[in-house]
Amino acid sequence: MRGQKWENCGAANNMTDSSTNMRLKLPIVCFILEIILIILFGVLVEYDHDTDARDFHNMSHHDYENDFYYRYPSFQDVHVMIFIGFGFLMTFLQRYGFSSVGFNFLIAAFSLQWATLMQGFFHGMHGGKIHIGVESMINADFCTGSVLISFGAVLGKTSPIQLLIMAMFEVTLFSVNEYILLSVLGTKDAGGSMTIHTFGAYFGLMVTRVLYRPNLDKSKHRNSSVYHSDLFAMIGTIYLWMFWPSFNSAVTAHGDDQHRTAMNTYYSLAACTMSSYAMSALTAHDGKLDMVHIQNAALAGGVAAGTAGEMMLTPFGSMIVGFLAGIISVLGYKYLTPVLEEKLKIQDTCGVNNLHGMPGILGAIVGAVTAAVATKDVYGEGLHDVFPLVAEGKREASVQGGIQAVSLAVTLGIALIGGLIVGFILKLPVFGAPPDTICFEDNIYWEVSLRSFITNSTSHDQNQNNTHLHSLDVSITSQNQ
Amino acid sequence: MRGQKWENCGAANNMTDSSTNMRLKLPIVCFILEIILIILFGVLVEYDHDTDARDFHNMSHHDYENDFYYRYPSFQDVHVMIFIGFGFLMTFLQRYGFSSVGFNFLIAAFSLQWATLMQGFFHGMHGGKIHIGVESMINADFCTGSVLISFGAVLGKTSPIQLLIMAMFEVTLFSVNEYILLSVLGTKDAGGSMTIHTFGAYFGLMVTRVLYRPNLDKSKHRNSSVYHSDLFAMIGTIYLWMFWPSFNSAVTAHGDDQHRTAMNTYYSLAACTMSSYAMSALTAHDGKLDMVHIQNAALAGGVAAGTAGEMMLTPFGSMIVGFLAGIISVLGYKYLTPVLEEKLKIQDTCGVNNLHGMPGILGAIVGAVTAAVATKDVYGEGLHDVFPLVAEGKREASVQGGIQAVSLAVTLGIALIGGLIVGFILKLPVFGAPPDTICFEDNIYWEVSLRSFITNSTSHDQNQNNTHLHSLDVSITSQNQ
Amino acid sequence: MRGQKWENCGAANNMTDSSTNMRLKLPIVCFILEIILIILFGVLVEYDHDTDARDFHNMSHHDYENDFYYRYPSFQDVHVMIFIGFGFLMTFLQRYGFSSVGFNFLIAAFSLQWATLMQGFFHGMHGGKIHIGVESMINADFCTGSVLISFGAVLGKTSPIQLLIMAMFEVTLFSVNEYILLSVLGTKDAGGSMTIHTFGAYFGLMVTRVLYRPNLDKSKHRNSSVYHSDLFAMIGTIYLWMFWPSFNSAVTAHGDDQHRTAMNTYYSLAACTMSSYAMSALTAHDGKLDMVHIQNAALAGGVAAGTAGEMMLTPFGSMIVGFLAGIISVLGYKYLTPVLEEKLKIQDTCGVNNLHGMPGILGAIVGAVTAAVATKDVYGEGLHDVFPLVAEGKREASVQGGIQAVSLAVTLGIALIGGLIVGFILKLPVFGAPPDTICFEDNIYWEVSLRSFITNSTSHDQNQNNTHLHSLDVSITSQNQ
Repeated sequence: MRGQKWENCGAANNMTDSSTNMRLKLPIVCFILEIILIILFGVLVEYDHDTDARDFHNMSHHDYENDFYYRYPSFQDVHVMIFIGFGFLMTFLQRYGFSSVGFNFLIAAFSLQWATLMQGFFHGMHGGKIHIGVESMINADFCTGSVLISFGAVLGKTSPIQLLIMAMFEVTLFSVNEYILLSVLGTKDAGGSMTIHTFGAYFGLMVTRVLYRPNLDKSKHRNSSVYHSDLFAMIGTIYLWMFWPSFNSAVTAHGDDQHRTAMNTYYSLAACTMSSYAMSALTAHDGKLDMVHIQNAALAGGVAAGTAGEMMLTPFGSMIVGFLAGIISVLGYKYLTPVLEEKLKIQDTCGVNNLHGMPGILGAIVGAVTAAVATKDVYGEGLHDVFPLVAEGKREASVQGGIQAVSLAVTLGIALIGGLIVGFILKLPVFGAPPDTICFEDNIYWEVSLRSFITNSTSHDQNQNNTHLHSLDVSITSQNQ
Repeated sequence: MRGQKWENCGAANNMTDSSTNMRLKLPIVCFILEIILIILFGVLVEYDHDTDARDFHNMSHHDYENDFYYRYPSFQDVHVMIFIGFGFLMTFLQRYGFSSVGFNFLIAAFSLQWATLMQGFFHGMHGGKIHIGVESMINADFCTGSVLISFGAVLGKTSPIQLLIMAMFEVTLFSVNEYILLSVLGTKDAGGSMTIHTFGAYFGLMVTRVLYRPNLDKSKHRNSSVYHSDLFAMIGTIYLWMFWPSFNSAVTAHGDDQHRTAMNTYYSLAACTMSSYAMSALTAHDGKLDMVHIQNAALAGGVAAGTAGEMMLTPFGSMIVGFLAGIISVLGYKYLTPVLEEKLKIQDTCGVNNLHGMPGILGAIVGAVTAAVATKDVYGEGLHDVFPLVAEGKREASVQGGIQAVSLAVTLGIALIGGLIVGFILKLPVFGAPPDTICFEDNIYWEVSLRSFITNSTSHDQNQNNTHLHSLDVSITSQNQ
Repeated sequence: MRGQKWENCGAANNMTDSSTNMRLKLPIVCFILEIILIILFGVLVEYDHDTDARDFHNMSHHDYENDFYYRYPSFQDVHVMIFIGFGFLMTFLQRYGFSSVGFNFLIAAFSLQWATLMQGFFHGMHGGKIHIGVESMINADFCTGSVLISFGAVLGKTSPIQLLIMAMFEVTLFSVNEYILLSVLGTKDAGGSMTIHTFGAYFGLMVTRVLYRPNLDKSKHRNSSVYHSDLFAMIGTIYLWMFWPSFNSAVTAHGDDQHRTAMNTYYSLAACTMSSYAMSALTAHDGKLDMVHIQNAALAGGVAAGTAGEMMLTPFGSMIVGFLAGIISVLGYKYLTPVLEEKLKIQDTCGVNNLHGMPGILGAIVGAVTAAVATKDVYGEGLHDVFPLVAEGKREASVQGGIQAVSLAVTLGIALIGGLIVGFILKLPVFGAPPDTICFEDNIYWEVSLRSFITNSTSHDQNQNNTHLHSLDVSITSQNQ
């Protein structure tokens, strides 16, 4: 019967003390945030032209011209990346599957609502109202993606309340940065190499730096994968990989732009997969492939094609970009992550620097170069879609390239300073963070059925009339001894 | 080598006796049902205008005007909800994963064929023929969803033959109810708060009431989850959550209607997720989150937006509805489910009353109220799409609201009476139902490899030269002692 | 911390010797192949009309007429089938999940790039250039599917280098065969019953025949499933099943053709599921259902509708085809697979003969018959879409039927001869194939965390102060004794 539990467990209860108890804190935070959201939506949000019954029928449209039909399939692919892709990618930890999928779910559900308001506010109000439709839904999901990247950096070391607080601030800063880039500077970044990946990664890395835990090795026995958890994580990886072409093309101009962006990303990812496997075998133990690399580095090609994907990068250029991204990413996992932890005290649980940070910077640079060499000859009338300021003669292509490079610096600056401040806020000892000894552990915030772990003795070994605690449960029991 | 099994097992065989043996019964039922379906399709079913080569080319259409392009992506999302969403949501039980996904697969494959005929018959024949295309495929999947909701109520306690018989009757009654609502009463219910969720839930609850098992606690050690089964279930949950906007908008009018419905549902679900987490922490043990609530209650927002989603509910209104649905659903799991079982003898395995029943009723009420206040001022010319009878002046908006409320009563009546009758039919002792002691157990209907459970002794404990039966297998062995 | 491993293991290392060590071989092969691909893309590949910024804007198109909007949702469904569907379908083996998903990922990423070039070369160059867009992406994924079918036949017995070499040759031969059928003979095979399924299956069966391992039973304890691996495999099955309508309709003509193909496939699969369950209960042990049949045979209806799906097969005809395909497939698993292994020395790990081989032949025959009876009366002007040569009077329908039958023979010939040659190439002892004793084992090519398998003794049995190796790990340890 769903809703009833049959067992209880002393060992599990030991894990919960008053500071991490969520009984009142989490409901209060969730209710307050959601009620504020609902009120603000009531005051500020309206249907846009394509979702409003009166407005849409007011003009002599054909139903088939509704933007729904040209964005919604992309939206759903992005949606799958946010909730299944990110959620399951992080289930690789042996005892943190509930939290990976579950907290991903919670903070994404919050972030997409808050992002609707923040992005609507910055992207331009209509008579004091925010107008929403499928494009704003995609943008809200994009902003959410950035928060989830940061979640990857602090995975296993934060309470759900810390995550909600982080999301609240990060969505706000994301929207500020996005506004500066897209609206003030006229930067192109449809797939978000800068706005989403670089921002989310360095924001998260700075937060995890501020939240540095010197005694985290007390939880290190849980900070690794088991066989099945790696398979669950592959579900996340493969969905991210498959749908990345939709991600990068979801909000580009219609027509050839969406089409080209999806295709460039497809070839970038394919090339990246090849170089990731090569580098994994080359660097890992005994020539064996390492699941960490496959789960993560093979995706770097999507990140690196985020800015230039909509440009005339050509499949050839896309493959070179993806090829390099895979190499950089594996090298990062192998050599940079340990250094970051030991020297810079950055404990980056998922290695977001390798998957989103460095490939995001690579993508920004590729975008700047590709923009700088854009010509009317190559783009024809399509130049208006990709570089409207250049097409209108308001800006030279080389200037556009320079602006793209400046945008990367702006993004890094806002991300690092924002992460610093938010990190200190999250350090306040009232949010129920787990102690160093019980990080990477579902049981502290989730009711985990003891049936998962206990095996009664069987008729075959009745002479040992006792209860065995098996496999997944080792870490707890060895502590309790 | 697929197709060969290497082991055999005495303990497993003990589970099978002649009454639950499916060797002849299941093939006979499947073959007879499928042959009847094939014959009826041969006699009654034709391609509709958009799928027939001659008809479609007969008119001066552009290929792009084929309805395929405006419904098929939604259809595929719904299809994923039916087969992955419902199928994996029910894998939470520790030893019932094969049956959850596998019986879901079987009865869905049957139901969608039978629903094509039943709905085609009631929705209007064309010269004695049923015309089918992508819209009928979506409707058949919808009807199938209703059957799968009922499956959730009886999960673990029925044979596949009982499920096929139940599906046969339920599809028929679903089509009758749907016909009365949509065609006779002119009710609006695009996302099926009433026709799908309320109907499926109360039909299933009545069936499980009639099939009440007083000694079900003999199987209670299997009626719970383990760590990995909860992660598999989250795959189902997340897919249902992500694609619910497609579900509610799949058969609404084209244009703004589909667009608006999807967006309303998206915000309802996001708000529902927030309140579900809050309520779970508030009510569950020690302030810890309960997977049961997250897996189920977070979806109630989709159910509750099923009727009013296509209306001008506004994102604000949608969020309020979702917020309430999450609260109601968690409270149901916590307080109502145990009462239903103890007082009313309703053993509701998946808690469908909390996920589909009460949120469905909430959705029906919200729909009635929203319909009652509809005005030409708000909907403009779009009123023809949403409330054609009101737009044509044949009915006042307030009357439409009243009709919506009456429709809920009709649905509840047909569901409860239908479930009562079908429950008694399923009680006939010829369908191979499992005994009370072996409910929630795959091994009774599936060949479960013994390799799954047996561990040979290792070099480390050779002095106990015996075979251990581990983890998943505990329940069986402890019985056999 | 991702990127670091905490344990090491003697037993695991024993598995790796120099011949199977991939440290240099795999990187060299991957880098060389990818660099060749990148160079060839640079020289030969261009955006097609719908992806090129200048070309697309050169004509007075509406953005919504870009083929992206009419093929991309189908492409993504096919993409999911290739990477999730095939990848997870093969995770049924207890210790081969990493390789199933991971090698599937690697060879698919390579094949889709190589297929772009090969198919582009054969399908017609434009001024010495290959033009690519969403349709070429779908075709590349299709060709990749064929390689993955062959992978199913040799699953567990090949190194990743062998697989890449096989993919390289198979993609080439696939493209030759596809060119002969579609371009030379004017065969219709939109869903690839012949070009994809028959070709992939018999190519793979011939390869596995040449690679026959007389001592494979030394690994037979790993050549079976466990409970959770069967659930992971069901993810693959269900995705393949759900998206098969998109697969068969992805490259048919626009309009009614795509619509009809999807619907025919949908009903074929539903009927096939019913007959698969019936036959499984009828033939399997004690009337219990066998996961092998459900995971595979239920898909045969999609294969069998691959050629005739776009024709006016009617739902009635589709259901008969699916019904027969399910029966044939289960019978193949039960009776033919053991015979193939014992008499013909064909060790077909996934039973691709039953899922792709025989159902593919059935589909080819159904296509030939359906083509032979096509009339202008039934197809109207739509005849130009489906049978252009017949519509233009260049060929009688009966001749088209004959050509279809000849095409099956051509496909079988090229597949068998090609598989024979490629098999002998793969036999060269330099590719790092696993020894007979360690087939079906991830640990030979992947770093598998020992934490997956080791259970420390607990406080309850401290008197046995030792380390147990449990469940998944049995096979290794029993070898080491």
